[in-house]
Amino acid sequence: MLFFTQCFGAVLDLIHLRFQHYKAKRVFSAAGQLVCVVNPTHSLKYAPTRCAVAQTSTEQGSLPPCHHHEAVHDPQLVPCTCPLFSCPWEGHLEVVVSHLRQNHRINILQGAEIVFLATDMHLPAPTDWIIMHSCLGHQFLLVLRKQEKYEGHPQFFATMMLIGTPTQADNFTYRLELNRNQRRLKWEATPRSVLECVDSVISDGDCLVLNTSLAQLFSDNGSLAIGIAITTSKVHNGEAEM
Amino acid sequence: MLFFTQCFGAVLDLIHLRFQHYKAKRVFSAAGQLVCVVNPTHSLKYAPTRCAVAQTSTEQGSLPPCHHHEAVHDPQLVPCTCPLFSCPWEGHLEVVVSHLRQNHRINILQGAEIVFLATDMHLPAPTDWIIMHSCLGHQFLLVLRKQEKYEGHPQFFATMMLIGTPTQADNFTYRLELNRNQRRLKWEATPRSVLECVDSVISDGDCLVLNTSLAQLFSDNGSLAIGIAITTSKVHNGEAEM
Repeated sequence: MLFFTQCFGAVLDLIHLRFQHYKAKRVFSAAGQLVCVVNPTHSLKYAPTRCAVAQTSTEQGSLPPCHHHEAVHDPQLVPCTCPLFSCPWEGHLEVVVSHLRQNHRINILQGAEIVFLATDMHLPAPTDWIIMHSCLGHQFLLVLRKQEKYEGHPQFFATMMLIGTPTQADNFTYRLELNRNQRRLKWEATPRSVLECVDSVISDGDCLVLNTSLAQLFSDNGSLAIGIAITTSKVHNGEAEM
Repeated sequence: MLFFTQCFGAVLDLIHLRFQHYKAKRVFSAAGQLVCVVNPTHSLKYAPTRCAVAQTSTEQGSLPPCHHHEAVHDPQLVPCTCPLFSCPWEGHLEVVVSHLRQNHRINILQGAEIVFLATDMHLPAPTDWIIMHSCLGHQFLLVLRKQEKYEGHPQFFATMMLIGTPTQADNFTYRLELNRNQRRLKWEATPRSVLECVDSVISDGDCLVLNTSLAQLFSDNGSLAIGIAITTSKVHNGEAEM
């Protein structure tokens, strides 16, 4: 019996060690900055025209334009904001984060400044690299997408969305920075709300856009490091909304 | 006779006033920065494969890859570096600036920080906006090009080239900055030498690249303002080359 208990303990230790190794691979600290290794996910339900509806009336309380469900009656409910799947889930904005973590296994990181290290940049389009970022009391969704807007010419699109309303999003500024090979590219903008749909932000090109050759110049061994920083752009006057 | 002299004087005054007005339209100062209005030029001899030769051996003394002339014997001579025309001119690197000014009417501006205001962004591709920039004892060529790399999808490419050798270019860093509508895009890099050919820099995508929708977001009334700054990146050890 003692033998079996010891064996079981050893197996548990191995599982724990494997888990630690897995975590270590995904998040580590370099030069004082938190580096998050993000593996790609092939978009199973990618549809370029998913968000064809014009982005009007996306303030809290009205139906978001990404809505796929015909039978929604509660205007407070929002659909799943995961850009990877056409997920039938819907719920209140406050529980979107836990849905994304539990159902779509999207990691969440803490910290004002982090490095998003996207691996396997060579994988064919469409591919997404996604994490959530918890900062300044809010949660943000960072999406890097490889997509062929022009057939045969994949491009990379990176944007940050607030898991909150457009009014709340106006209070922040996000910065994405690439820095390698004596080149530096910085993109600063107000994050869009997840209610506005990441697909339409990318199809509008209102984000950081990289062609393949530039992505290669900024990549190291097939991985692209994007420095992320979020700041408040004005006094939070929309805090009471959520 | 006095009447004719007076008439001639009046005509001269009018020409002078017209010239002053023309100059005032092209360069003005806004918020302490020199703003240069750059009108577009339709590329008459645009050829995407103009620089098919690999960019090797572009140091001073060897033949540059953009060379079109079969009968060049003097290795010190370089061809015209104007990206607009297949110009048969060739000469020493030291006289390229005066050739560009006199024969191709490319303006030259002084100052460490200037604003390049490209007008008529809506014009069809291929179109170029070009100025020379004199700074830190050297001359630089700034090229903004609208080009269709993918048919039906024009993009804007902006780069800065040193009118000097690649070794001299390594001593500098240039920055291009767009800032409008709560968005900011910065590109920093080491300038390339004009001996390396602007066409291949653009076809490689190793420059600031803007899709049409992003260019529209940064434009104001059809004009795109690009802030330019040049700094020295290390001690000038290549000064003796030229």
